[in-house]
Amino acid sequence: MAAARSLHGRLTKPAGSLGTLEDLSVRLAGLARTCPPPLPTPAAVAIFAGDHGVHAQGVTPWPQEVTVQMVANFLAGGAVINAFARETGAGVHVVDVGIATTLDPAPGLISAKIRPGTADLATGPAMTEAEARAAIETGLRTATQLIDGGAKILVAGDMGIANTTPAAALIAALTGRDPASVTGRGTGIDDQTFERKIAVVRAALRRLSASTEAGVLRTEANAPHAGADVRPAVADGQPAVADVRPAVSDVRPTVADVLRVVAEVGGLEHAAIAGFILGAAAHRVPLVVDGVNAAAGALIAAALHPRVTGALIAGHRSVEPGATAALAHLGLEPLIDLGMRLGEGTGAVLALPIVSGAVRVLHEVATFDSAGVSEK
Amino acid sequence: MAAARSLHGRLTKPAGSLGTLEDLSVRLAGLARTCPPPLPTPAAVAIFAGDHGVHAQGVTPWPQEVTVQMVANFLAGGAVINAFARETGAGVHVVDVGIATTLDPAPGLISAKIRPGTADLATGPAMTEAEARAAIETGLRTATQLIDGGAKILVAGDMGIANTTPAAALIAALTGRDPASVTGRGTGIDDQTFERKIAVVRAALRRLSASTEAGVLRTEANAPHAGADVRPAVADGQPAVADVRPAVSDVRPTVADVLRVVAEVGGLEHAAIAGFILGAAAHRVPLVVDGVNAAAGALIAAALHPRVTGALIAGHRSVEPGATAALAHLGLEPLIDLGMRLGEGTGAVLALPIVSGAVRVLHEVATFDSAGVSEK
Repeated sequence: MAAARSLHGRLTKPAGSLGTLEDLSVRLAGLARTCPPPLPTPAAVAIFAGDHGVHAQGVTPWPQEVTVQMVANFLAGGAVINAFARETGAGVHVVDVGIATTLDPAPGLISAKIRPGTADLATGPAMTEAEARAAIETGLRTATQLIDGGAKILVAGDMGIANTTPAAALIAALTGRDPASVTGRGTGIDDQTFERKIAVVRAALRRLSASTEAGVLRTEANAPHAGADVRPAVADGQPAVADVRPAVSDVRPTVADVLRVVAEVGGLEHAAIAGFILGAAAHRVPLVVDGVNAAAGALIAAALHPRVTGALIAGHRSVEPGATAALAHLGLEPLIDLGMRLGEGTGAVLALPIVSGAVRVLHEVATFDSAGVSEK
Repeated sequence: MAAARSLHGRLTKPAGSLGTLEDLSVRLAGLARTCPPPLPTPAAVAIFAGDHGVHAQGVTPWPQEVTVQMVANFLAGGAVINAFARETGAGVHVVDVGIATTLDPAPGLISAKIRPGTADLATGPAMTEAEARAAIETGLRTATQLIDGGAKILVAGDMGIANTTPAAALIAALTGRDPASVTGRGTGIDDQTFERKIAVVRAALRRLSASTEAGVLRTEANAPHAGADVRPAVADGQPAVADVRPAVSDVRPTVADVLRVVAEVGGLEHAAIAGFILGAAAHRVPLVVDGVNAAAGALIAAALHPRVTGALIAGHRSVEPGATAALAHLGLEPLIDLGMRLGEGTGAVLALPIVSGAVRVLHEVATFDSAGVSEK
């Protein structure tokens, strides 16, 4: 990081004139422990897809089968994420961690179904703690698989009708904010549905408080700090969930606490995204988070290991209020803010050229000396 | 535009979920008068370069020769704009409209010097009105040349040590704002230099008020409105400055007024950028403006023909206060905001993939019908 800061001072541009991009490139040098850090191409997008028992509560007007229909659309290249990925040269992968229906194998589809949709979090736990752990491990494996395949940067996307409801519950549980302040209108819902959605999230949080000792999750001492000093949880082999338990367990939630939160009120795709982030950080590969669902996954990952934030880049600011709450909790500022609320990884993929541009500067721009440009 | 709005409602995404990008793609459909509008690739960046007599007033710590040294750096591919252009597939062209020293011909250099730097705007007019007109015509010709060469989107960049001083004067004159509120620290100057810079801009504005009848330039009635209904100034041939005079001259400045402002307090690159914008709009090709200097050029263009704003995209929000004042006056919201203040076209080029992504959606994304996705 010091080398990157020093290099920025010698490049043919006024010091600091690239604003946020200079800080970003310095962080990425720290993550990679080399200056310049590797160019972040190619990029691989993983869209973690799952269904949600809470759909039965009428929290969204969209039919549940849209999840699997959109997955087919992703695999056929017809969705917005595909258009944006073609624009930016990213590869698109879909990971079935919990779609309610059975999918045939297809190119681009990673079949890793933990269960065919969660249970209804309004009436009981969404999944077991073992299932939450398995979903996290699926995300970890996906990160390793994509990095082994050559990806130099990962993008976490999501697909799952009704998934902004568990996202809001996770964000409320992991940041301590009031459910009403982190619940949004998702794909666009009317006032009545919105009120029902908030009530569902609030009830789930009450059940969580009653059933767990996770009160610690609500403390401010729990807020992780952004920074590039990622200590990977992996030594010589595959990272495992147990390895990423933070050392200071008296002010941070334990792995058991976090698994309980995910099992009670989460979604399979949120758990998988958390594992995906842990995997990226363990490999010191940057990962760009998309909207509110990826941000909820990032909160899970940071609760397990606060220093994962050093590998995280916030691609865009979703209009979902929970996304902003989660990013603020993680100390991340989004690169773009275009009023998007689609998910799939779309906002993150649009930010990829900005990340690449920031790193390219350290690789390609001449110094005052080498270009014979006078200094002030 | 109606066709683009209607198509957005049928694509496989929740209505409105792409936020600003939907509006942008609708505007571009209006500009091109077809839906979907052409994919905006390839892009061509023109960096208009000039020197400034006001450099003698000590408004910047950088030596004047840095202008020509940085032009050599652009032509050698070693500047930040080159790195960002490689990232986004844009071509880089440098237009010498007024560098103080003589340049040898080189690939990528368009030699169109009007004069070797402006006169000192602190002591008299920066240039003659004929020179201002010639610089505008150079910009027009450059746009036509790049579009004839295949460019589907243009980027306006700038290089000229001390050019944020005339930019501030132009913005104050064309928006009616106080010089202190639109003058910035450019490449980074100390408090004393900053005070001197504001005093220079203020004195130039006083001289302009005394010497012109351009009081009309300060009226709010003069504020143009963003919109895609560009009426091109060109009929069958080359657009000419006289053709773009707005019809309602009693509330808008006349061409003579605008030329007087540019001649008194402007820079050759600002005038050329104005012409470049008029040329893009006349050809119904979108143009992305970069920082405060391109924004000052956009104000000149809009003063000559308010509807050019329909072809304009604000690439990023420069930290220079004048840039935000100019964009607000033009009714433009920047796509990105990363604390940059480099010029060269850098912030605009980073926004190109976002513009392309917005248009790609209309070309490539499947409809609910075609993809067999259920609607709510």
